[in-house]
Amino acid sequence: MTAHVSILCTGNEILDGRIEDSNSRYLISALANIGVSVRQILACRDEISSIRDSISYLFSDCDVLIISGGLGPTSDDLTREAVAAYLGKSLYLDSDALHDLQELYRRRKRHFDGSNTKQAQFPEGSRILKNPVGTAAGFHCTSKQSKHILVVPGVPHEMKRMCTEHILPFATKHFGLQGTPRSFYLHVFGRPESKVGELVESKGVPAAVRISYRAHYPEIIVKISAEGDDALAERFTMQAKQLIGTDYVYSELELATFEHSVHTLLVERQKTVAVAESCTGGMVGGLLTSNAGASSFFLGGAITYSNESKTKLLGVPAALIEKHGAVSQEVAKQMAESARNLFSSDLAVSITGIAGPDGGSEDKPVGTFYVGFATRNSCEAFHCFASASRSMVRTFAAYTALDIIRRHVLGHELRPRDIIGVPQSMTDAHPSEGKA
Amino acid sequence: MTAHVSILCTGNEILDGRIEDSNSRYLISALANIGVSVRQILACRDEISSIRDSISYLFSDCDVLIISGGLGPTSDDLTREAVAAYLGKSLYLDSDALHDLQELYRRRKRHFDGSNTKQAQFPEGSRILKNPVGTAAGFHCTSKQSKHILVVPGVPHEMKRMCTEHILPFATKHFGLQGTPRSFYLHVFGRPESKVGELVESKGVPAAVRISYRAHYPEIIVKISAEGDDALAERFTMQAKQLIGTDYVYSELELATFEHSVHTLLVERQKTVAVAESCTGGMVGGLLTSNAGASSFFLGGAITYSNESKTKLLGVPAALIEKHGAVSQEVAKQMAESARNLFSSDLAVSITGIAGPDGGSEDKPVGTFYVGFATRNSCEAFHCFASASRSMVRTFAAYTALDIIRRHVLGHELRPRDIIGVPQSMTDAHPSEGKA
Repeated sequence: MTAHVSILCTGNEILDGRIEDSNSRYLISALANIGVSVRQILACRDEISSIRDSISYLFSDCDVLIISGGLGPTSDDLTREAVAAYLGKSLYLDSDALHDLQELYRRRKRHFDGSNTKQAQFPEGSRILKNPVGTAAGFHCTSKQSKHILVVPGVPHEMKRMCTEHILPFATKHFGLQGTPRSFYLHVFGRPESKVGELVESKGVPAAVRISYRAHYPEIIVKISAEGDDALAERFTMQAKQLIGTDYVYSELELATFEHSVHTLLVERQKTVAVAESCTGGMVGGLLTSNAGASSFFLGGAITYSNESKTKLLGVPAALIEKHGAVSQEVAKQMAESARNLFSSDLAVSITGIAGPDGGSEDKPVGTFYVGFATRNSCEAFHCFASASRSMVRTFAAYTALDIIRRHVLGHELRPRDIIGVPQSMTDAHPSEGKA
Repeated sequence: MTAHVSILCTGNEILDGRIEDSNSRYLISALANIGVSVRQILACRDEISSIRDSISYLFSDCDVLIISGGLGPTSDDLTREAVAAYLGKSLYLDSDALHDLQELYRRRKRHFDGSNTKQAQFPEGSRILKNPVGTAAGFHCTSKQSKHILVVPGVPHEMKRMCTEHILPFATKHFGLQGTPRSFYLHVFGRPESKVGELVESKGVPAAVRISYRAHYPEIIVKISAEGDDALAERFTMQAKQLIGTDYVYSELELATFEHSVHTLLVERQKTVAVAESCTGGMVGGLLTSNAGASSFFLGGAITYSNESKTKLLGVPAALIEKHGAVSQEVAKQMAESARNLFSSDLAVSITGIAGPDGGSEDKPVGTFYVGFATRNSCEAFHCFASASRSMVRTFAAYTALDIIRRHVLGHELRPRDIIGVPQSMTDAHPSEGKA
């Protein structure tokens, strides 16, 4: 079986909301960086029984346990006692550690008394993990079942230093870097999570293949791996890409972002872009300039939130707005055309819509928006709809504009029928990630 | 014995470091606010056995368990199955929930197929917890030992809504309100976290007072409470506000956002605004239009990323750019002045800067930006600097522009000396680093 690591954070202050547990997040990503993914994370109270029981539970599903917290000198620092209790060992006073501790107090001109000697006590048989930035040394001990416990202080900057100097070297030695199966990624825009899942699994899923879906509104990231068979995972990923529709998959890089992919495309193809934004108020421009080097393709844009500004900056005839409404295919088209001319860019996109929550009508409900797209020799506009909150409608509209640029540059159909009116569901959707 | 509550978050994406578990933190403080402190928090993988075992373990030390995540429509959403397995019950298809689900899909103009019906399945005997903002309904069931399991979706904004509508009412009923101290908040922009902490505590902190600082780049949120003495907490908060500097505190509302505060001010004072953006590429316009009703004050803006566009749209003389550089006080001033004229707004802000990572020089290093500000009878520009990543420089610049509007409307000094060159440090900038 492959080795597993779990994390235990002790501290009432975490559980009653006084402080946020940033340690486990730090440890997770430090371990992820060396290919080790964490099995379970548990936060428990500062009680010997609670810590001891947590250790036994976590060891039912891992063989390396990292504990942070409870190494201070005060009465509610009980991790030493709890680990000793779990191991059925007693605590001993380590004379070297005691000496280091007294030295540290002397250097810091702090009085050293009996209560401090507690920080030089460790379960019998521990390997002491020196703490170069604090008084609380950590320790590493091994159970009869040869399970490993590494204990480090809970003070974030001390924990981080201990992670670098003790935890990562141990984890690298213990797990190696080759153990973990390779992961493949598909970044999808334009299909809801449920649809993506249905398509990916429509031809069955081999037993060894593991799939996870992450909604990062308005995109879906599919992660695929196969225990001990990377080739299978790669083949399944290629099949999944076909099933989703290759033009819906904008990247296969783990850390890809939609705006960066579009950025890269525009730099490669040497196409310049301008924008004209109404309901998004500048979000498209913000996305297009979020990566360094945007000046090589992004020329600028007009944020025309009011009707007057649409007429004044972009020369959209007041009569046209009067006749079709500011939120209309005709106005979107004119906005894109004018933006392209104004900035003499190769391409231009425009957005006008009803982000809500108010302003909807029977034939143009909240969530209705139009994206205009102009090239040097064509101009069209697309009707789109996203039934969602104001911020989600705006985000979806901004991504749709980027997607039309992407599809044009790659020679894909600009707006496949089944994107229209198919926003991510609320469940799929949230800027700050997570699955339902 | 007093009742205990624990939290279980499911999701491999939490454990392999792809996303951070913000849900348990939210639940902890929501429960803390009604006086309920959490017993244990566990994060486990998306596997039926792992979720089931986690439930049994946590119930060894609590009688109410809140589970978030695993209610989506895809194959790795397994919480329903795991809870049913733990309870020894089977899943049934709830016709009302199915009907609601189909309704939701119809309203959202989305195709409803077999893969979606999964979200209408619940363990026998569940009380369904309606989800007003998404497709994943939650559920509440009770074990033979009359322990309670409340399951809510993992998507943060849905989980929060479910917490308010279902979890807190249940917890209040089950645990009773336990005279919790009231919390007071100070939202700060323009001072780094370390400085805010130093000022707040400069006159000492009464033993009963509890302070927490949260950095949500580029703002700092200070939370103050006092065990059993709300009046003390309120007095201390007022003192803290004075010590920080009242003009740096933009709100005392728990859920305030900077853009919404500025939005509200502009609506109240009936001032219209236009923007001219270079390095922020539309972010200021995006912030100003993020809340409903922005059309009452936001007229529009010019995104002038290229020098040509600065000249063509805003009439910034090419000679001026030539002489002082596109990133200069003179150009920022001209941009603001022109934007105000172009949109005939009461106020206008402009931003031109070097967001980096390239493009810096000896006298204008990366992080240098200028904010121009024009009213009907004045125009000035401010030199600013933020030593940070590209995205942080852009965010800090956008906030600075909003802050100058806010300060003008409130009659504060527009740009106090000690904001200049005092960006948040990278460490302050972590969205969720608590004070440890």
